[in-house]
Amino acid sequence: MCRWAAYRGTPIPLEQIVSAPGHSLIEQSHHAIQAKTATNGDGFGVAWYGEHPEPGLYRDVLPAWSDCNLKSLARQIRSPLFLAHVRASTGGATSRDNCHPFVNGRWSFMHNGQIAGFEKIRRPMEAALSDRLYQARQGTTDSELLFLLALEFGLETDPAAAFGEAIRFALSEAARAGVRELVRFTAAVSDGNALHAIRYASDEYAPTLYAAPTCNNQGHCLVSEPFKDTGTKWHEIPAGSIVTLTASGMTSKRFKPMQAEAVKVAEVA
Amino acid sequence: MCRWAAYRGTPIPLEQIVSAPGHSLIEQSHHAIQAKTATNGDGFGVAWYGEHPEPGLYRDVLPAWSDCNLKSLARQIRSPLFLAHVRASTGGATSRDNCHPFVNGRWSFMHNGQIAGFEKIRRPMEAALSDRLYQARQGTTDSELLFLLALEFGLETDPAAAFGEAIRFALSEAARAGVRELVRFTAAVSDGNALHAIRYASDEYAPTLYAAPTCNNQGHCLVSEPFKDTGTKWHEIPAGSIVTLTASGMTSKRFKPMQAEAVKVAEVA
Amino acid sequence: MCRWAAYRGTPIPLEQIVSAPGHSLIEQSHHAIQAKTATNGDGFGVAWYGEHPEPGLYRDVLPAWSDCNLKSLARQIRSPLFLAHVRASTGGATSRDNCHPFVNGRWSFMHNGQIAGFEKIRRPMEAALSDRLYQARQGTTDSELLFLLALEFGLETDPAAAFGEAIRFALSEAARAGVRELVRFTAAVSDGNALHAIRYASDEYAPTLYAAPTCNNQGHCLVSEPFKDTGTKWHEIPAGSIVTLTASGMTSKRFKPMQAEAVKVAEVA
Amino acid sequence: MCRWAAYRGTPIPLEQIVSAPGHSLIEQSHHAIQAKTATNGDGFGVAWYGEHPEPGLYRDVLPAWSDCNLKSLARQIRSPLFLAHVRASTGGATSRDNCHPFVNGRWSFMHNGQIAGFEKIRRPMEAALSDRLYQARQGTTDSELLFLLALEFGLETDPAAAFGEAIRFALSEAARAGVRELVRFTAAVSDGNALHAIRYASDEYAPTLYAAPTCNNQGHCLVSEPFKDTGTKWHEIPAGSIVTLTASGMTSKRFKPMQAEAVKVAEVA
Repeated sequence: MCRWAAYRGTPIPLEQIVSAPGHSLIEQSHHAIQAKTATNGDGFGVAWYGEHPEPGLYRDVLPAWSDCNLKSLARQIRSPLFLAHVRASTGGATSRDNCHPFVNGRWSFMHNGQIAGFEKIRRPMEAALSDRLYQARQGTTDSELLFLLALEFGLETDPAAAFGEAIRFALSEAARAGVRELVRFTAAVSDGNALHAIRYASDEYAPTLYAAPTCNNQGHCLVSEPFKDTGTKWHEIPAGSIVTLTASGMTSKRFKPMQAEAVKVAEVA
Repeated sequence: MCRWAAYRGTPIPLEQIVSAPGHSLIEQSHHAIQAKTATNGDGFGVAWYGEHPEPGLYRDVLPAWSDCNLKSLARQIRSPLFLAHVRASTGGATSRDNCHPFVNGRWSFMHNGQIAGFEKIRRPMEAALSDRLYQARQGTTDSELLFLLALEFGLETDPAAAFGEAIRFALSEAARAGVRELVRFTAAVSDGNALHAIRYASDEYAPTLYAAPTCNNQGHCLVSEPFKDTGTKWHEIPAGSIVTLTASGMTSKRFKPMQAEAVKVAEVA
Repeated sequence: MCRWAAYRGTPIPLEQIVSAPGHSLIEQSHHAIQAKTATNGDGFGVAWYGEHPEPGLYRDVLPAWSDCNLKSLARQIRSPLFLAHVRASTGGATSRDNCHPFVNGRWSFMHNGQIAGFEKIRRPMEAALSDRLYQARQGTTDSELLFLLALEFGLETDPAAAFGEAIRFALSEAARAGVRELVRFTAAVSDGNALHAIRYASDEYAPTLYAAPTCNNQGHCLVSEPFKDTGTKWHEIPAGSIVTLTASGMTSKRFKPMQAEAVKVAEVA
Repeated sequence: MCRWAAYRGTPIPLEQIVSAPGHSLIEQSHHAIQAKTATNGDGFGVAWYGEHPEPGLYRDVLPAWSDCNLKSLARQIRSPLFLAHVRASTGGATSRDNCHPFVNGRWSFMHNGQIAGFEKIRRPMEAALSDRLYQARQGTTDSELLFLLALEFGLETDPAAAFGEAIRFALSEAARAGVRELVRFTAAVSDGNALHAIRYASDEYAPTLYAAPTCNNQGHCLVSEPFKDTGTKWHEIPAGSIVTLTASGMTSKRFKPMQAEAVKVAEVA
């Protein structure tokens, strides 16, 4: 169970979200409140968009709170769109390749949640990847694999449909393997233009997700858990939703991949 | 505020104290109860005595719970006397050189506690070291410095007197610098034969210390905080004490370096 | 192109082979002579057998020469059978999971060499693993995969046949994929009793392998490259050989997996 | 003996100097030619100026060639003035705090060279620091100490005089301690506006230093050793020189701190 934060809007230094004292992701890495585990010390990462289509990526296995490089980078780097993550491992070794965000081409992705019984269905899930995406796999986490499957299933054209199909696929493989059919999935994904966030679980415990305008309404922030500052107006994103931030603002849609309607959408896509 | 555990007795694998599931130091690194900070993720270390007079030393900056090397070493290495520590930094960067235990020749040392306002008195404290011990300083912590000062003040002949003098020296430098005169000090030190542990604070909040016989009375364990197993009979060491484990068993004495009696002892030493 | 050393015989401290000044593996990590790359700074590892059937394992991504933990461990740990490796990456990220030796149950393995065009044939090679060994894969190297395939192909009963089949399999997949059919393979493998070393290449450039008695003939050392000490009598193991060290001494056999005779042996096995 | 490169001019991505294939600092970290040690694998660092007066700083203990974070950062970050360094330790542990560049306020500094017998004169050199700079010391290297002494001796107003005095001080302490009087010092220092580089040794072996215009004469590069590209016109800076890059271009002066004239300059400063 991890914590993450994402931003889209007027360019700001990463530190405003990542490391500002009292109300940032690093603060949460030490003292998360709404998470199953209070400590998120199994590595961290940040992906940010700059002058290239591909995002920059900085990940390490230390706790975020003790990495002086991260503090310096977060202070110097200014970006209009970035994803930041602190990890509490639910499986998978503590290695850089298992730290979020994951990047593929211009796409970046990070996740809070889990696939129950993942070790039992990892192999058929990896078998569903094309050779190109199979080669792109670097770590061993369920999160990275959901991202690669979404790329396989059309992330570039329809993020909601692609992640819906990835989740359905994981659940069907769980059924086939006779393990508990459970996916919890609160995630952010971006191509450098739009920033999408999904809050979903196949049971009633979808990991939390909040949104708020920031920077005098020049930007939006999406977070696993509200920061402790008093000025920001956080509102909770309901389970079964996908929200999308673009230059036009924030929109929200249902995300219910196991219901007929959503399935149909995905099949059309 | 850190957590530590030390053992002396019949040789046992380190894992019995360091990493056994449910009742070990690694367990505590995630979920300390009696500590000011619940997480001790700023590195770890273990010093153990084997066939050489000088102890082995393994330290790293990762959280103890995620280091697979530590798990393997703790399973393979068997020792009659060892010190193990998980760190929650109260100052000093997260680097290997700032991780406990500290080793000098055949001596090893680890500490839970702090010197208030240490940055203001670090320089005069370092100035009190002989050239040899000044060169031996590797990190920047108050803990390492108290250890080196104790070596300066006669640790090899009288550990209680030496640490008493080191603590008095720190308090007198604090007074001179006009900072709060406060030392909290629950520590273990060994030369490979005896294992000493001190529980002390200059105020009423001495960090906790517990002792228990283990291994069918073939050994003793000293810990910051009792493990969660049910079979072991822990008893709390009172503040203002030094306990010593030797082949003859455990003895206890008062440790009150700011009282006349203790001062006299130290001066004689 | 890496460097490695292995030992079997009367128990000795690891440091005699790993870190002794002037004639050890760490020395070679800085200044290899017979290797394609003079520097082996992409991590290191050591696996040693002690009181458990499973070996201990210590690996890290730093250059071996700068790891103070390794120096201390190598001085303290005494073992009758161990494998030590310094890595110069020919592919695969610098991560602990990609460092040699690799361990599975009581088996340990390390490798100097490469499979040409590995990225093109990785997927069918991984597909040949049983579910159990597929799940055991931790890193992304060709070396670990050859080890897992050998386990798949009967390593526990016939190491020569199993590695022969693994190599033939890699070469046949290379042929199928239209990449250059080339495997270079100088490797050591042990189950804690026997220590085997293979020197082989499908072309004429098999990475070097040397053997020598040590410790007054109480042990044997196998190395990629002779140490620089003057007292030891190294002799070169010819390409196309497998040598085996047991309590009875050293034996040598042909290892030519692409020739009919060897193929037959493997098929029988 | 390390390798470094510094740039001042029109803003460019760090990668043009740090990691571009075939002619960059990372290339040299593997295969230095004019250095005493061919491998510079004991960590690396980069300090760059952006929108703050204080530079960003990224340092780590891995070899530069295997750090994927560095590659990504060097591609994303664009700066008009930066310093980059790969380290081959001549003493001092491999830790982040011992990696160059060193930063203090808006000043950054990096060094190739050494003080002979540094361990013998470290203490009196540290004693010459004011309390503020004594507290600012983070590592244990001679390089960081020369930087702090230069700050002590007026770096902010006259870099040549300040480093001259720091070098004279080191040599006089060496004389007092009876160790060989030898300082080799090829270094770069900047306040975010001017970029200075010094080539000096108290004997005849001043570590090399080269300069070249780059980016169609929109910038200048200073390096320990020329890159292997063919288009750049490198010229060697003679020993006993300090060169300064500003918006007006490059100027050069004598730097002979042990000669009367230079001493006088320093005293006046």
